[in-house]
Amino acid sequence: MPEQSPPPDTYSLNSQLQSSQLQALVEQIRAGSPRALARAITSVENRNSDSAALLKALFPYTGKALVVGLTGAPGSGKSTLVDQLAREYRKQGKTVGIIAVDPTSPYTGGAILGDRIRMQAHHADPGIYIRSMATRGSLGGLARTTADVASVLDAAGRDILLIETVGVGQDEVDIVRLADVTIVILVPGMGDDVQTIKAGIMEIADVFVINKSDREGAERVEREIRAMQALAVRHDDWVPPIVKTIASEGIGIGELAEAINRYVGYLAESGAGDRKKEQNWRGRLVEMLRDSLLERVVLDHVGEDAIAGYASDVAQHKRDPYSLVEQIVADFSSNSTSTVEK
Amino acid sequence: MPEQSPPPDTYSLNSQLQSSQLQALVEQIRAGSPRALARAITSVENRNSDSAALLKALFPYTGKALVVGLTGAPGSGKSTLVDQLAREYRKQGKTVGIIAVDPTSPYTGGAILGDRIRMQAHHADPGIYIRSMATRGSLGGLARTTADVASVLDAAGRDILLIETVGVGQDEVDIVRLADVTIVILVPGMGDDVQTIKAGIMEIADVFVINKSDREGAERVEREIRAMQALAVRHDDWVPPIVKTIASEGIGIGELAEAINRYVGYLAESGAGDRKKEQNWRGRLVEMLRDSLLERVVLDHVGEDAIAGYASDVAQHKRDPYSLVEQIVADFSSNSTSTVEK
Repeated sequence: MPEQSPPPDTYSLNSQLQSSQLQALVEQIRAGSPRALARAITSVENRNSDSAALLKALFPYTGKALVVGLTGAPGSGKSTLVDQLAREYRKQGKTVGIIAVDPTSPYTGGAILGDRIRMQAHHADPGIYIRSMATRGSLGGLARTTADVASVLDAAGRDILLIETVGVGQDEVDIVRLADVTIVILVPGMGDDVQTIKAGIMEIADVFVINKSDREGAERVEREIRAMQALAVRHDDWVPPIVKTIASEGIGIGELAEAINRYVGYLAESGAGDRKKEQNWRGRLVEMLRDSLLERVVLDHVGEDAIAGYASDVAQHKRDPYSLVEQIVADFSSNSTSTVEK
Repeated sequence: MPEQSPPPDTYSLNSQLQSSQLQALVEQIRAGSPRALARAITSVENRNSDSAALLKALFPYTGKALVVGLTGAPGSGKSTLVDQLAREYRKQGKTVGIIAVDPTSPYTGGAILGDRIRMQAHHADPGIYIRSMATRGSLGGLARTTADVASVLDAAGRDILLIETVGVGQDEVDIVRLADVTIVILVPGMGDDVQTIKAGIMEIADVFVINKSDREGAERVEREIRAMQALAVRHDDWVPPIVKTIASEGIGIGELAEAINRYVGYLAESGAGDRKKEQNWRGRLVEMLRDSLLERVVLDHVGEDAIAGYASDVAQHKRDPYSLVEQIVADFSSNSTSTVEK
């Protein structure tokens, strides 16, 4: 990092932070400063030039939070359930971070407004931190950004991270794969609701929730889940429990926290938790490599202008894109074997 | 390509094709052989070792098809509309390829069954070729695979390619971006249907369809689209028309084909078509680079086993993932400047 005169009493997160400033920011995040936390998350979301150094500096303090992923179709009462679950954990004296990811939401402004309304519902309890994410960077996936934001909250000492997503696309499956515990929320009477949630998410559910369970058809949803479980092949011997809730009335929330707790106990005893963390990191490393390689090649090695020129050539059929990509990759590669210690 | 003895009278698409075999396959695809087409598409979908050579060989014959992307929420009557539109183009003597992409569909088997039912509806007209895609490879995105399958159908001489997707995730936005013409399908009475479709898709609509337009609320949907258009900023001066259809009765289909035709005329006259193709290719090149780089690094340079080992180290906090990724990328890079002719 180049030596430069630091701006007094402030972090400029758009330029390179000095080591000492970085360390100060890390300390403030760990001390729970909401301002430092908000700045760090914004830096990570925008993947600005400081974010890599910041994530590196925070890494030693991560790995302690329990990450719970919750997914369900629009209208399944996901946010209400997440808020109630956060309240339950607060009663147990635990601090909570909520990351609400909704790539289908058309209005980022709406997401921010939603945050404020939800924050008010928690009476500005500093033990609950809520962040909504509706966008993704041009070079990085939403899953990676969510993972990085979760790392910041983890390093900030949040005991429980609740990540909620609409379970509709590949992004959401990737996001849910970051979690230690995955919860799939279904509701009765939404017709083919079991089918409208992406299959991959149904398969990785560790706990099922039937929310709005006072509605007609709750038993049918339960039977459908059981039927699906009979067909599904899990890589461990955990049988995902089905918890019935009415989130709007706070019914079944204690039971849900209990079911999560039982699964966490199972993860620890069986060793499945370590395997899950390894698998999650495998996915994250691959995603980080993908982004990092692309960034190096497109921005530094070839240049955006050259890419635009190539695109024009290909569009005019002056050049075949397959040979072009092969050549760029070959040029970039040193053909050396990896020197990274194994 | 290494010299090897060719298997008699057959292409083995799991091993490297000889030049002569590849040329034969290309000729059969161009001659419209359904068997050759099916094999080529399967090869491209699975991204097996021959697919790159095949796509390269087919590239000179691509760029002639009109690619129409159609997107709408589940229940919007998308498939029926696409089938009717295909029928309309057949009446005009044009050949059609349909690619149905539904990443939310839990059952690939269901997709294949759906293909058969839809094929029967077209009385086995060889002028309509239907392929459903519900999965994606581990290293490649669904958007890229869809683009490659579209290239095969394009090289096979299909005049019109209809690509239908459920407009819910980023994958679908990327898929729609491949198209020359983008059609967004809405239906009355689905409540917040305008909002449940991803914002990015609304913005790139070139033609709006209000399907099931005999239902109550069609005028409200139209007003909502008009209100949204007043806010949206297009990069050209095209005002997307709104076409009302009742696809199940074949009503409004001719008008839709006509609206598409007008937009195609506009693209040609204004030069916007060339810019669109360049933009599409820019996105495709970046995606191809991303996949290709990752494949080279993960499979050839580092190796899957080493990645698994690193993931284990990171999960145990023995190693920080950010420095690790930086080092792998630096190792892989030759630091040379690009030699690709600009």
